[in-house]
Formats: sequence, structure tokens, C-alpha cells
Amino acid sequence: MEAFSPEIILAARKRIAPYLHRTPVLSSSQINERLGAELYFKCENFQKTGSFKARGATNAILQLEASERERGVATHSSGNHGQALAWAAARLKVPCHVIMPSNAPKVKVAAVKGYGAKVHFCEPNLTAREAGLKEVQERYGLSFIPPFDHVNIIAGQSSAAAELIEDHPNLDAIFAPIGGGGLMAGTALSAHYFSPRTKVYAGEPEGADDAFRSFYSGELVTELQADTISDGLRTCVGKVNFPIIQALLSDIITVTDAETIAAMRLIYERLKIVIEPSCAVPLAAVIQQKERFNKQRIGIILSGGNVDLEQLPF
Amino acid sequence: MEAFSPEIILAARKRIAPYLHRTPVLSSSQINERLGAELYFKCENFQKTGSFKARGATNAILQLEASERERGVATHSSGNHGQALAWAAARLKVPCHVIMPSNAPKVKVAAVKGYGAKVHFCEPNLTAREAGLKEVQERYGLSFIPPFDHVNIIAGQSSAAAELIEDHPNLDAIFAPIGGGGLMAGTALSAHYFSPRTKVYAGEPEGADDAFRSFYSGELVTELQADTISDGLRTCVGKVNFPIIQALLSDIITVTDAETIAAMRLIYERLKIVIEPSCAVPLAAVIQQKERFNKQRIGIILSGGNVDLEQLPF
Repeated sequence: MEAFSPEIILAARKRIAPYLHRTPVLSSSQINERLGAELYFKCENFQKTGSFKARGATNAILQLEASERERGVATHSSGNHGQALAWAAARLKVPCHVIMPSNAPKVKVAAVKGYGAKVHFCEPNLTAREAGLKEVQERYGLSFIPPFDHVNIIAGQSSAAAELIEDHPNLDAIFAPIGGGGLMAGTALSAHYFSPRTKVYAGEPEGADDAFRSFYSGELVTELQADTISDGLRTCVGKVNFPIIQALLSDIITVTDAETIAAMRLIYERLKIVIEPSCAVPLAAVIQQKERFNKQRIGIILSGGNVDLEQLPF
Repeated sequence: MEAFSPEIILAARKRIAPYLHRTPVLSSSQINERLGAELYFKCENFQKTGSFKARGATNAILQLEASERERGVATHSSGNHGQALAWAAARLKVPCHVIMPSNAPKVKVAAVKGYGAKVHFCEPNLTAREAGLKEVQERYGLSFIPPFDHVNIIAGQSSAAAELIEDHPNLDAIFAPIGGGGLMAGTALSAHYFSPRTKVYAGEPEGADDAFRSFYSGELVTELQADTISDGLRTCVGKVNFPIIQALLSDIITVTDAETIAAMRLIYERLKIVIEPSCAVPLAAVIQQKERFNKQRIGIILSGGNVDLEQLPF
């Protein structure tokens, strides 16, 4: 927590704004009627590269020294962070290398390459990924940009909630999904500094409930056998992220995949937007605890829309 | 054409504005790069009831005499117009009856009933529909609100293009899909009055190309064996609509269903929004004739987003 201040959050937001979309906030009178509450959906699925990850990646690169930017950046990712870093690096004219598992979906590999990053394949396990990253880093003198476990990433992700709070200053509650905790910690910090009466909640899949267990035991869970459709949330919360989450969240609500799929479908049908499963987890949590949030004004960060359209769960 | 003037179009827009969304305009840098043009998508899929049809239905009801509104309105429809009329009638506290074929999808029947309209079933053919409508009209003294072939419907639909032109005043071209021609005629009138240098184009499915044939023969085609995935465009152009289309359109471009599906998928992937097949027809036309529209600033009316998510063609 000591690493953060309102000034750091504001500076990150100002730093990255020229490169990113100020995403719109949507609502649906039918969803509101059904839930007896007012919901405001911050659409990061419309963000550059299709997820909020473009915010943190841009902030992290812009915080590097000129000499570091000249040499380039690296990460290991098979998901939204890899695409976001590749895009941000191209936009800022910084070389970018991404370590991807050899079994990564072709479409994700193509997206990273499409942004001009160099892809290095490794065996599909964490040891191989980390070894691959280390080797590439040393060979080219690259700066590692982690997906969530870093102050500059969290500060970048915080800008989504800061914009939502500016658009809707009287929220009773704000929800985000929790995976590694980059978006969640950033969301909690923005609410804490800029809307202190707003309570902050995480939605988490039951099949990857490390954050829930860490939050209520007080000890960070660092191993997880994830089993959930929400592929963006299959990681443990990071070390930098956990104390922020512990200090600032009111609750973590876990949901089943069936609840997530129902919420996802409701968003497709009523908001008419494309989202990925992870993105529907917070709405699933609100629906599950409808009575508790009755009559509240609730902000929901919709995290991303990178979904395989041939594999929609309905 | 004599039935219209800039004042009539402006009055309709002002009349319906309090009840409807001013829908957003989206763009995608990746779509623009791919086409070598600037595309602006007017998102009527976000409109009340999920399509532009809410505009015309609202305008038509608001133009009725007080005594007519008291008795109520009726239409026959298994698609977006039925839902739009049911919604607008409920919003304006006017009784509404909708004749629907006995084989209409349950979800569409439920939507119409959900807005509080009375549904009457008939055999699934035009004769039975018209007989059913006539009987219900006479029994309750209802005003028939047709789906497209009426001045007040066209004037209502024109407001979508009027808003787009206000947001983006320098368009070289504006596209809409053509079915009965309500949206298309309204779009052409708004461009004619408020942006006369903008050329107006229709996209039409090859498997329902009555508008194309009418436009180039000069004689209105009134029978059609439609065979297309674009279910909103399986009707012939109306008598009131045709002279406007003939006078004001630069071209009608026909596309195959395969081209429509590819354009639909591009919109899901890049704009991250949910649309129905009919809605993708204009983009399919621009993609087909990419060279012709190179470097142009092009407005596209995205007509609606009411699609069966279990039947997506990809």
C-alpha cells in the first residue's frame, strides 16, 4: 500500500490517456429491473486490444528508462497481457518478445505476431516459461513486464475504475473480477482515493478461488489447480496485489461456471456486447446476492472481450 | 417524396428523442486499416428493443389522435417491428395487439408479451396474417402501424442517420441495409436534406434482391422467394419507400450470405458488439467493393442486435 498515493494513480492515468480509449459506460433498464438495482458497466472489452490489460502494459513501458525502452521488453503470456504488451510496445516503438507455450491457440499467437512482437515458443509449463523468459531477457537485455504483480501495472489498471467513478460519482459498490489481482487492486485503490464511501467487491470463480481463501485466511495461497471456464482468472493473486486487496475489499464472492455463463448470456442479450467468460463473473456475483445489493448503485468493470466465437458456451 | 421536407424529419426526431437512446458511433482502427477507409458504425443494436424499429414505432404512435391512442394499435410481425411497437405502446400507455404466426420462435413471442402487448396467433401465411389483423383491428377499433410502408415510420427511422451526420458531418458515403425500405428511405432523406454531398448506398442479400431489381428496372418488384440468412431483409420494398430510394440512392450492392457472415464475424471480433445477420450486410458490401470506397469516410447504420445466440453462423 505504501507504494501508492492518489498522485501516483492520477499520474498513471494522465501518462497513458493519449494512447488508450476512454471506454463507454453502458446500462440496461431490463437488467436493472430484474435486479432491483442500478448497474453501470465500464466496457473495457472496447479497450485497445480488447481488454483493460492495455492500460497496465502502456503504463509499465512508459515508466522505463530511455535505455531500457531502446533494448525492449519481454513477458510470458498466452492471454490478454501478451497481446496488450505487444500492442503497447509497437505503439511506443519498443522491441517486444513474448514467450508462449507451444500449445497456445493459433489465433492468440497470430494476434501477438500481428502487433509485431517476436514470439518464442516453450514447453507448456511454468518452469519452461520462466526459463525461456530468462534466456530471452539475458540475450537481448530486455525488461520483464509482468502481467499483474507490479506497482506500475496496478497503477495502470486503476485508471478504468477512476474513469468510471468520474462518470458516476455516487456508486454504492464497485465490482471487478479477480485473477492475479492487477485490475482488482487498481480498482480498489481508485475507489479508496476518489470515492471512499464506495464499497469494493471481487467476483471469483469457485474453481479458482485462491483469492477468496487468501482473503479469509489472511495467508496468500500460491498454488492452484484451476478448473473454470473463466480462463483469464486461472492464476493466483500476486504478492504486491494481496495486501491492497486485503486492506480495501469488503468481500470476495465466488460463483459457479453455470452462474458465470448465465451472466455472460444476459450481457450478450441485453447489452448487445461481446465479452469473455472471466468478464461476466462480477455480474454473476451480483445476481447470486441480489437481495444484498438491492437498490444499490453498482459499477462493474467489464474486463475484456477476447473470446473464441466458435466456443461460446451457449 | 412530396410527403417529406427537412421540417418533417426534424420534427420527428424531436418528437421521439425523449423516449429513445441517442446511440453511440463506434470505429475500429483494425477494420479501417484493412479497408483503407474510415468507417463509422451507428449502433442501433444498442437502441431500445435492440433495433432502429423503436424509432419509427414511437413516431407513428405519437402521430395518432388522442382518441386513436386510447383505442390502441395493432400490427402483424414476427420480428423487430412487433417488439418495437409493443415496447413503444407500453411506454406511451397505448393498448397494443400483435398478430404472430403460430410457428413464431417462443423467445420472440415472449418478448412481445413481456412488453405487455396482447398476442394473437394465426396460420403462418400472409393471407391469414392480414385476415387476423383485420379482425382484431375491427373488434377493438385499433390503428394499424405498418412495419415500413408509411410516411411516419420512414420519418422516425430517418433520425438514426440524422444523428450520425451530426456526429460525423463529412461523410463521403452512408450505407444501410434494405428490406422493406423504412430505414433505407429515412437514411436517404436525412442525407439528402442535411448532408447533400454524401452519397447513399444500400446493402442487400443476393437471396432477397427485390430492391436491386426494382431499382435497376424502374418497376417495383412485389413478389419474392427470399433465401437468405438475413431474416430482417426478407420482404419487398414498400410503395411509399420505393420512389425515395429510386430518387436518392447512388447504388444497391448485393452480397452473398457467406460475405454477410464474414462481415458479421468481423464486427463481433473487432467492434466487440452483438448484431444480427441483416445488420452486417452493408459492411459486407463495403468489403466486397473495397477498391471503390478506398480512402472514403463511410457511415454505416448497424440496424439491430436481436439474434439467437444459439444459432450464430460461426
